[in-house]
Parts: sequence; C-alpha cells; structure tokens
Amino acid sequence: MVRVSRMTSSLMRRAIDLSIDSVKRGIGGPFAALVARQGEVIAVGVNQVATSNDPTAHAEVVAIRDACKQLNSFQLIGCEMYTTCEPCPMCLGAIYWARLDRIYFGNTRDDAARIGFDDAFIYDQMAVPILQRSIPMEPLMREQALEAFREWELATVKIRY
Amino acid sequence: MVRVSRMTSSLMRRAIDLSIDSVKRGIGGPFAALVARQGEVIAVGVNQVATSNDPTAHAEVVAIRDACKQLNSFQLIGCEMYTTCEPCPMCLGAIYWARLDRIYFGNTRDDAARIGFDDAFIYDQMAVPILQRSIPMEPLMREQALEAFREWELATVKIRY
Repeated sequence: MVRVSRMTSSLMRRAIDLSIDSVKRGIGGPFAALVARQGEVIAVGVNQVATSNDPTAHAEVVAIRDACKQLNSFQLIGCEMYTTCEPCPMCLGAIYWARLDRIYFGNTRDDAARIGFDDAFIYDQMAVPILQRSIPMEPLMREQALEAFREWELATVKIRY
Repeated sequence: MVRVSRMTSSLMRRAIDLSIDSVKRGIGGPFAALVARQGEVIAVGVNQVATSNDPTAHAEVVAIRDACKQLNSFQLIGCEMYTTCEPCPMCLGAIYWARLDRIYFGNTRDDAARIGFDDAFIYDQMAVPILQRSIPMEPLMREQALEAFREWELATVKIRY
C-alpha cells in the first residue's frame, strides 16, 4: 500500500474535479491535469482539442505550456504533474521534454481505450517498424537534411533544450 | 530504390531550407516541418522551444497546430507532413492524433541523438515499466478518476476526436 500524503491526494482531487467539470460543461474530453511545485499549483489544463481545433491540446500539454509561461522557462524541473489519466505518448514526450520531476496519474491507458480514446493504439504503433505503421513514415533526403545538423554543431550561439 | 516525385523532393527541400535558415537566424534547433495537401503547403513550422519558452513547440507540433487553424479542423486527414528529422515520441503522438496520411522525414532519431537531442532516450523510456522510468509515474486514485469517464459515457453531447 503506497502511503499518500494529504497534499498529494488533495492535488489529484482537484485535477479530478476539473475533469468532471470539463465533461459537464462540454469543454472537451474527460481529462484534466495540473502542474504543482512544492504543493503550489502553477497551472491547470483541460482537454481542448475539439473546442480549440488543436489536436495537441491535451490536458497535460495545455498545463505544461501554461506552467512554462508562468515560470518563464521551457523546463519544469522541480515541478510535479497530477493528471487524471496515464499520459498518451504525445503527452509523455512533452513531459520528458519539460523535464518534470514526477507524474501522478488516475485512469490508465486501457481505461481510456475502453471509452474510445486511442492512447493504447498509439503506444502499440511506437513499437512497429517505421514502414509498417498505420501512418506510413518514409525516410527521404537524409544527406541533404543533415546539413542543418552540421550548421547547428558549428553555431556559436545556441540554447540547448 | 524508392522513386521520389519532383513534388515530394521539392517539398522536402523547402523544409530542409527552413531548418538551415532557422539555425542561421538563431530561432531554435535545426528542425523544420511542413504540412501539405495535394502538393499545396498548408502550414510550416520551425522549432521554437527556446524562443517561445514552450517545450512542446517542436517544428512538427507548430506545423500541425497552424495547419489545423488554417483548415479549421482538429484533424488533418488527406494531408502529408515533410519533416527534416524523424519525429520524437511527442511529435509522433501529435501526428497520430492529427490523423495525417503520411510522413516523410530526413534525419533519423540517432542523427538527432548524436547532436544532443534526447529523442532516442525518450523512445527507450516508452518501453520501460512505468515505475522504473527516469521520471517516476505513480498510479493514484483511479477509482475516483474513473468518475469523469463514466460522465463522458453518459454525456449526450460529445465530439469524438
């Protein structure tokens, strides 16, 4: 049995309430997330894919983008995320790039699949060889594309992220 | 030997030129992408992580978000993406959610790793069990979180995405 602090469960409760409210108000799918630092909420997000015509506007991405804006940084080291569902591959990638410290999640990817969200399918696709994926991915003009990488290595001013 | 049409190579050339220009002008990393439909460019994107303090602002995500805005849709069925580097897991997830038809890419994830971008590391993390990942992911309060999913199933008005 994992011991959960009152702060941790209270932050997850807040995310869950946001996800329920989001469905009831018809904002988007049944998903919400928040970013907190030492117990203080920095940013919240609910799914806005359909309402903002943005397929990347998952709750976690919305919360990460807003937290970065609040902290004026493209990294969230020292922050934790509370999300009502196990992040999909897109959101998991965003979490790694944002360098969050820790993630708590409620529902699982299989719970999401059961109500019609393709998270599990996309996880499965990651492991499929590139040319056999349901969305074909073809390598093209690598030698020419490498020129930008060579320019990057030569650049004197660059911000590593 | 894959036969590449003049249109296809011309669109990839355009993306590559954008990626080189982006490094030279110091906008961001050496990455660019564009979304095209039947050969017509709908939107372009370059990496803006550092310049916009947004860890999700990879070239592919920027191009997808703008293409969706241009087409007033959260899906890009019938569109293709030309990206100068194999998409990272975040961008690959975004590509699946946007339902693009096909992806062409230049550099590989290993090329990106060689110049210091963690794409390959994040791909590896996807396959690691949740509790052993470098960013710990803990399940929490699933039973309470499921309430939003039950509400979603009961909702009469919902946009599937």
